[in-house]
Amino acid sequence: MIFTPRDPGFEQRTRESFLGQGFMHTLGAEMSKLTPGHCELEIGFTDALAQQHGFFHGGVIASLADVSGGYAAFSLLPADRTNVTVEFKLNLLLPAQGAKLIATATVLRCGRTLTVCRSDVFAVAGDDSQAFCATALATYMAVDLRYQGSEVK
Amino acid sequence: MIFTPRDPGFEQRTRESFLGQGFMHTLGAEMSKLTPGHCELEIGFTDALAQQHGFFHGGVIASLADVSGGYAAFSLLPADRTNVTVEFKLNLLLPAQGAKLIATATVLRCGRTLTVCRSDVFAVAGDDSQAFCATALATYMAVDLRYQGSEVK
Amino acid sequence: MIFTPRDPGFEQRTRESFLGQGFMHTLGAEMSKLTPGHCELEIGFTDALAQQHGFFHGGVIASLADVSGGYAAFSLLPADRTNVTVEFKLNLLLPAQGAKLIATATVLRCGRTLTVCRSDVFAVAGDDSQAFCATALATYMAVDLRYQGSEVK
Amino acid sequence: MIFTPRDPGFEQRTRESFLGQGFMHTLGAEMSKLTPGHCELEIGFTDALAQQHGFFHGGVIASLADVSGGYAAFSLLPADRTNVTVEFKLNLLLPAQGAKLIATATVLRCGRTLTVCRSDVFAVAGDDSQAFCATALATYMAVDLRYQGSEVK
Repeated sequence: MIFTPRDPGFEQRTRESFLGQGFMHTLGAEMSKLTPGHCELEIGFTDALAQQHGFFHGGVIASLADVSGGYAAFSLLPADRTNVTVEFKLNLLLPAQGAKLIATATVLRCGRTLTVCRSDVFAVAGDDSQAFCATALATYMAVDLRYQGSEVK
Repeated sequence: MIFTPRDPGFEQRTRESFLGQGFMHTLGAEMSKLTPGHCELEIGFTDALAQQHGFFHGGVIASLADVSGGYAAFSLLPADRTNVTVEFKLNLLLPAQGAKLIATATVLRCGRTLTVCRSDVFAVAGDDSQAFCATALATYMAVDLRYQGSEVK
Repeated sequence: MIFTPRDPGFEQRTRESFLGQGFMHTLGAEMSKLTPGHCELEIGFTDALAQQHGFFHGGVIASLADVSGGYAAFSLLPADRTNVTVEFKLNLLLPAQGAKLIATATVLRCGRTLTVCRSDVFAVAGDDSQAFCATALATYMAVDLRYQGSEVK
Repeated sequence: MIFTPRDPGFEQRTRESFLGQGFMHTLGAEMSKLTPGHCELEIGFTDALAQQHGFFHGGVIASLADVSGGYAAFSLLPADRTNVTVEFKLNLLLPAQGAKLIATATVLRCGRTLTVCRSDVFAVAGDDSQAFCATALATYMAVDLRYQGSEVK
């Protein structure tokens, strides 16, 4: 789907917001692609991100899925708005085993208040083969930039 | 609800599995309580776990909710089984602002193959007041200890 | 949890809205209890509501869970607002076998725009024993009474 | 995605199971397409399926989404298995206004025990224009044909 951003400066604004998330630094996540309504994030594997069998931890997968959808939605906001996650649902399809994780999110529906996104997560092996390892469906709410209140306000 | 563990040594086995998750070390998570079918995890706040407004990141909340439910389910498994997350859904209710997060999970239904858990997450302020900031509903699948395969096998 | 209704006439308004749903007539659903932030619905079993094994169909369970949460949320709205379902997630715990289904919903968080509810569904046998057969977690959005637009506006 | 059915007689078996659901008769649902791993269902609008504003009721949408996914999964089962819904999550994107509803489901991952499906729901107007009004993500479990037990067993 093709979306028209309401803020021509969406890319800089979106990337700055992403860089402001301490937890994304902790995970080593990078925003590898951003177009209006679409966002791709990547994380390289380290033991610090593993579960007990040496795969990417489900919490890492969930974080990447949630944040990729959040910034796909954020890219369509007017310049005086930010957003928060209302809820998301994640299905794990395969063990996330590989050198890196890629989450690709797209906006399914962008309303004035709520935006719904889908995020598909792939585990990329050393030979660049990709396994579709998880998918998420998420809802985000647009809020005022000075928002400090409830995520379900 | 009162559950009877199938493995009398469930506590040691559950805690050992939790300690084997590199990502839980990264988050600084601790297992503060464990009884059959119930699990409580805690994480102290650091900037490394924050989103852009200085609250606990949604991905941290999701991780804690998922893992607390996973070990509530794990505590009821026979000694020759482990489990994997099939899926979970998280609703964020309030900004998770505070000195620490506590996730309290309980088993709603324990079947032979699948277990369903609910996990409630609280943000604890410096004065020990608690805010109910998120809730999750999750499904886990029991698998063989040597399991290396699909999470939806 | 104790909630204070914003509209003293909430009960009549809530029950009238429920009676306006043709599909609830089709299911034979009744609103058996309503207090601020809480709603209980019931449906008696008929073959017209069954799946292929003669149990209540998952779609009936989902409908009852969704609507009970919707009216638990509706009961707390001001008189000039109505609401729509944003999303819900349902876990089926046991086959829903019995003479009737009861869904009990409670508001977990009531914001200005969004309300989050939990709904537990019980299958009631002829001897009045209850089996906890499903649970749902749902989000509702308050909208203007004249609302005809997007559910994620 | 292309799937190979494990039972060459999958189509007849799948359609017979669908016809055995009393609730699908009540809704007037028809299976308009079936190929291995894909299923499309349709329902025509009547007031008996409406919510209070005259649109298709969310419970009808949920039922169609769940069942379309269930039979997409069912089509890939061996002949001696059936399946049950473990859980599903539905996001409502737009009011479901129109002459009929179409739900198109596809299998995302087919494991030995669990199958994960996505179902997209469209409201079709009198002029055949389609509005993408809902999407669901669901998990199904394969069980023995004689299964009468827990949906999360």
